[in-house]
Amino acid sequence: MDVKEKARKAYTASIILANVKTEVKNQALNKIAQAIEEGKEAILKENEGDVKEGLILLEDGKLSKALLDRLKLSDSKISGIVESVKSVSNLNDPVGEVLSKTELSEALILSKRSVPIGVVGTVFESRPDVVPQIASLALKSGNSVIMKGGSEALNTNRKLYELIRDASESVSGIPSGWIQLIETRGDVSDLLKLDEYVDLVIPRGSNSFVQYVMDNTRIPVLGHADGICHVYVDKEADLSMAYEICFDSKTQYPAVCNALETMLVDEKIAEQFLPEMCEKFKLAGVELRGCARTREIVSDVVEASDEDWVTEYNDLILSIKVVEGLDEAIEHINTFGSHHTDVIVTEDQDSAKKFLDFVDSACVFYNCSTRFSDGFRFGLGAEVGISTNKIHARGPVGLEGLVIYKWVLEGKGQIVADFAEGKSKFTHKRIG
Amino acid sequence: MDVKEKARKAYTASIILANVKTEVKNQALNKIAQAIEEGKEAILKENEGDVKEGLILLEDGKLSKALLDRLKLSDSKISGIVESVKSVSNLNDPVGEVLSKTELSEALILSKRSVPIGVVGTVFESRPDVVPQIASLALKSGNSVIMKGGSEALNTNRKLYELIRDASESVSGIPSGWIQLIETRGDVSDLLKLDEYVDLVIPRGSNSFVQYVMDNTRIPVLGHADGICHVYVDKEADLSMAYEICFDSKTQYPAVCNALETMLVDEKIAEQFLPEMCEKFKLAGVELRGCARTREIVSDVVEASDEDWVTEYNDLILSIKVVEGLDEAIEHINTFGSHHTDVIVTEDQDSAKKFLDFVDSACVFYNCSTRFSDGFRFGLGAEVGISTNKIHARGPVGLEGLVIYKWVLEGKGQIVADFAEGKSKFTHKRIG
Repeated sequence: MDVKEKARKAYTASIILANVKTEVKNQALNKIAQAIEEGKEAILKENEGDVKEGLILLEDGKLSKALLDRLKLSDSKISGIVESVKSVSNLNDPVGEVLSKTELSEALILSKRSVPIGVVGTVFESRPDVVPQIASLALKSGNSVIMKGGSEALNTNRKLYELIRDASESVSGIPSGWIQLIETRGDVSDLLKLDEYVDLVIPRGSNSFVQYVMDNTRIPVLGHADGICHVYVDKEADLSMAYEICFDSKTQYPAVCNALETMLVDEKIAEQFLPEMCEKFKLAGVELRGCARTREIVSDVVEASDEDWVTEYNDLILSIKVVEGLDEAIEHINTFGSHHTDVIVTEDQDSAKKFLDFVDSACVFYNCSTRFSDGFRFGLGAEVGISTNKIHARGPVGLEGLVIYKWVLEGKGQIVADFAEGKSKFTHKRIG
Repeated sequence: MDVKEKARKAYTASIILANVKTEVKNQALNKIAQAIEEGKEAILKENEGDVKEGLILLEDGKLSKALLDRLKLSDSKISGIVESVKSVSNLNDPVGEVLSKTELSEALILSKRSVPIGVVGTVFESRPDVVPQIASLALKSGNSVIMKGGSEALNTNRKLYELIRDASESVSGIPSGWIQLIETRGDVSDLLKLDEYVDLVIPRGSNSFVQYVMDNTRIPVLGHADGICHVYVDKEADLSMAYEICFDSKTQYPAVCNALETMLVDEKIAEQFLPEMCEKFKLAGVELRGCARTREIVSDVVEASDEDWVTEYNDLILSIKVVEGLDEAIEHINTFGSHHTDVIVTEDQDSAKKFLDFVDSACVFYNCSTRFSDGFRFGLGAEVGISTNKIHARGPVGLEGLVIYKWVLEGKGQIVADFAEGKSKFTHKRIG
């Protein structure tokens, strides 16, 4: 079956899936969890094969150690997957909500109803646990999904896909074809042309890959771009709080997009703050790269280049800049940041307000760590990803990022000519 | 100033405009209305020049009569523009709403706040009244805007732009640079590359132009595609109601995207319904193109080709197809329609429900005219346009289509390590 045929099937299924009751979707999610649990041995066997080939790629320098680690499944990782699929059945169904109801005129009632987006294409790297995660979120929100995983995880992904497909489609009411797997780069390039059937593409991977997708499709893209996050330590900061927040933001898990990359420090407290802060970072093995003024205060900091201000290290590296004050901090963040997550540490409410209002980022925080920027921590349940788009969904995206609405108008034979001629009148009364 | 510099200025202004109070924005809207009223003579003079050149283009076959008509302003058209700008000041400000508020943990409060999108690029055809319309909607929703109008309206647009810019920027608090005009096709092509500064593009024009924009930018596009709207006359329809609805949908204003293009008729009532319906259409000068079964019933209907089912006539032409019943009607609409607005006429509640649930369109109507699909009639106030996108905004889009949200998290020094180590716990309590 070629990609177009898969997409066509996914589209046809999406019309039915959009109308499946919550109970049936939950039943299918539990069936999927059970199938993955029972298929553990089979999944691990396929995964062993992938890992074996991955080791050869690693030796040839074609796969990183980090990616190989993420590729490898274990008993406990599979138990985690099973739990996570089950947990999606406990989330609220975002479909079928009446978002507003208006009487346009007598007996002419307009409702705005939440509905699934339709067909979602996702393309991601080697971690095979993304397959059940995305599949369960798509199913719960009534969307068909077309998935392309990393080629290193081909056999594992295929096994997971088959288990999910067979388990869900065994439940009466779940349409066949709602989940599709594609496997090659050529398939992805075909997928990106199918705007006739595919309503949204979610690429997860490197920034350059996301840009490639954006440049090669007219399908809307929910983008997960760089995370160049900042903490600004204001002159009115509680310095002991600032040490904790900066340290947590950088070191608690440096490989992720909500970790701190650039620390901005008000010049008025820089001499007091930086020596102890830098000592703390150095003890934790963090490489520090600073502006000239930082290096005047802490001599053994490496010189930061212009490139550092626009770099997501994803590693134990931190750039530091001393700024004149709040305005320069805001300007630096809006110019060099990635509009992801930025923090101010201060005891001054007015400065906090100005920072939260004028920093143009998906997440703006006051006196807490950048690392809170996450769907689970935000209480959204599972997470589709983090979006730095400025339409549809921004920041951590939960299930509500996979729905849109349709307008339903119910009348008794009304025609527009009667309104144009003044025989009928609009009332526009909000009734729900 | 080149396009990049204009976009940079618009971006800088957008950060300020996002935080301007409603009263100040309304004051600026009223200043704009006043400036257009007082500038009437000057605007008409520029417009005369454009129309004069338009007449030459018309003679050379380079401009249609319809476009020339839309280009031409008059005293009463300008009064209409003034009223419409004033009316935007009466709409609710969509910015600054707290959409939700959650206690993540003790004294760690997450708010989801509505904010402007940022910088909106718009490209449209010759009607100069679009300039004040888009400008006032952008201003009210706190967005900077970059506009490119039709080259036929160059002088009129430039005059309107200058009046709007000067009037709004004379109000204290409105940042300079929030409105920008670009004038050439080359400018548009430059604009589409500026995803660094521009957050959304709204093209208004032909379907092929919208497709061109989608194919040439990584900026999200709010698309206004074809309007191939259907009315399905079910076997349980009240036929006298069906005559009225079909006639209104086709003839009340055929040049617009929410007019009827294809009428679908259940075979069980086709012989009863079609003769009178076709007669009514023919008397109104509507050209009818039908399937074989339609032509068996009404002999002087032209034969419809496959092309007819996917054509937006925007004219007094209608295609007619006899279908086996509801399921074939839904399938026809989902396959050949443009997901804009589709109607069922029936007295059977179950059939109505199935149609409304399974037709995959922005607007699905029951027993009323397709022509109600419109921002004003929906009670949204002014209209940004009609979207057939399936993310962000769908169907008639009002001011709420020009806002997004940001996540604001306010704490007292919380760090993620404490949660990871079990020292702190998430409460995730919805408090607003």
